[in-house]
Amino acid sequence: MNLLLLEPHELEEDIAFIRDARARHVQRVLRAEPGQQIRVGIVDGPVGHAEVLDCSSGGVRLRCELGETPPATPVDLVLALPRPKVLKRLYAPLAAMGVGRLLLTNAAKVERCYFDSHALDPDRIRARMLEGLSQARDTRLPEVLVSRSFRRTVEDLLPDDGALRLLADPLYAGSTYEMAKRADARLVLALGPEGGWTAYEREHLERHGFVGVGLGPRTLRSDTAVVALMSLAHAGLAAR
Amino acid sequence: MNLLLLEPHELEEDIAFIRDARARHVQRVLRAEPGQQIRVGIVDGPVGHAEVLDCSSGGVRLRCELGETPPATPVDLVLALPRPKVLKRLYAPLAAMGVGRLLLTNAAKVERCYFDSHALDPDRIRARMLEGLSQARDTRLPEVLVSRSFRRTVEDLLPDDGALRLLADPLYAGSTYEMAKRADARLVLALGPEGGWTAYEREHLERHGFVGVGLGPRTLRSDTAVVALMSLAHAGLAAR
Repeated sequence: MNLLLLEPHELEEDIAFIRDARARHVQRVLRAEPGQQIRVGIVDGPVGHAEVLDCSSGGVRLRCELGETPPATPVDLVLALPRPKVLKRLYAPLAAMGVGRLLLTNAAKVERCYFDSHALDPDRIRARMLEGLSQARDTRLPEVLVSRSFRRTVEDLLPDDGALRLLADPLYAGSTYEMAKRADARLVLALGPEGGWTAYEREHLERHGFVGVGLGPRTLRSDTAVVALMSLAHAGLAAR
Repeated sequence: MNLLLLEPHELEEDIAFIRDARARHVQRVLRAEPGQQIRVGIVDGPVGHAEVLDCSSGGVRLRCELGETPPATPVDLVLALPRPKVLKRLYAPLAAMGVGRLLLTNAAKVERCYFDSHALDPDRIRARMLEGLSQARDTRLPEVLVSRSFRRTVEDLLPDDGALRLLADPLYAGSTYEMAKRADARLVLALGPEGGWTAYEREHLERHGFVGVGLGPRTLRSDTAVVALMSLAHAGLAAR
């Protein structure tokens, strides 16, 4: 935990009192004592520092001094809904790497039953995302949308904000990094299911402004491919 | 499984007979029938195709036609030994992304007990690595070395082969992708433990030719950081 995240309602004026796993972490891992400073952030709000006022078995009381709200993450991800086991493991790293909006979509090669999985439970998603934000010292909770219709995803759910749209598929040769380096503002990445996008899906995405980028000559499992793609996109954006 | 991997001793002339999980995969997932062609590779050897000769509950018999051996992967990784749970999950993606030599090393912030873990059992490592190779259609099994001495790792275990040496740490600003793009031949990446390299370790690596590269402004967990770093390195090499 590199940033202690507080919910807005946990703050009264500049004082927060926590008593859950975060309090245990502050006491046992950070070994905080009264007077010590720790990094804090408010979910979807500012980051800053807090002074530990007192620690007891009942909890930890903090006085917070907050500064600026981190900027919004300039990368959105359209991801064909992965297997629940893989999906659960992706929330924290995605939030840590930085995703503004995560659009989990249906596609021809997505198993329908994945949509009924606990991996899509909003409370679980939120808890995992907060872990990732805490790791990366960010407060901006990604927005997660689930769409059972691929057409609706492409036609209605993508904001018309001038973002550069990249479609990742082993069939293309374009470089995610080099394309991201040329983006004006935001980036939308689309990554298909384990078996890839179908020809219809690729064409539909292309008709809606997506440009193909490759994933290298080696076929990666989708959990590895997501991290690879996101890191190339962020590195390209940072190099502008 | 994108490539069926066979051990060299499983081949007699051009005929192989398999009866383990691979045979079940060929029968149940690929639904192969006599006459069908599937992709095969020999561990540390050539890739090619095989014709299914017969399938039964006893196993699958194949006639192989083999071509070229894939080139050696131009990236080595020096990785401060991660937690066993994380390490176990890294073997397959590392082999899939492509690593020539994986040097698992001690460092000041590595817990000593990690060296006694089952995650370092050679048979388990091999099995996970084969999964990754099969996914990425490669046959070149990474060489795995375990070193309990950081000094020995740096001073004795790195080949003097003119590889560009990159040291990843949040303290540096250099770009892994841009550096890799300028590499002549091979690349050696060094990634520290969850708490980072110490000042002594960074200086020691720098004295031995390592150049610092950053990991972006966001602190990633080491399993995510490994995948991010490897993908940037491979993408940079591919862009030369």
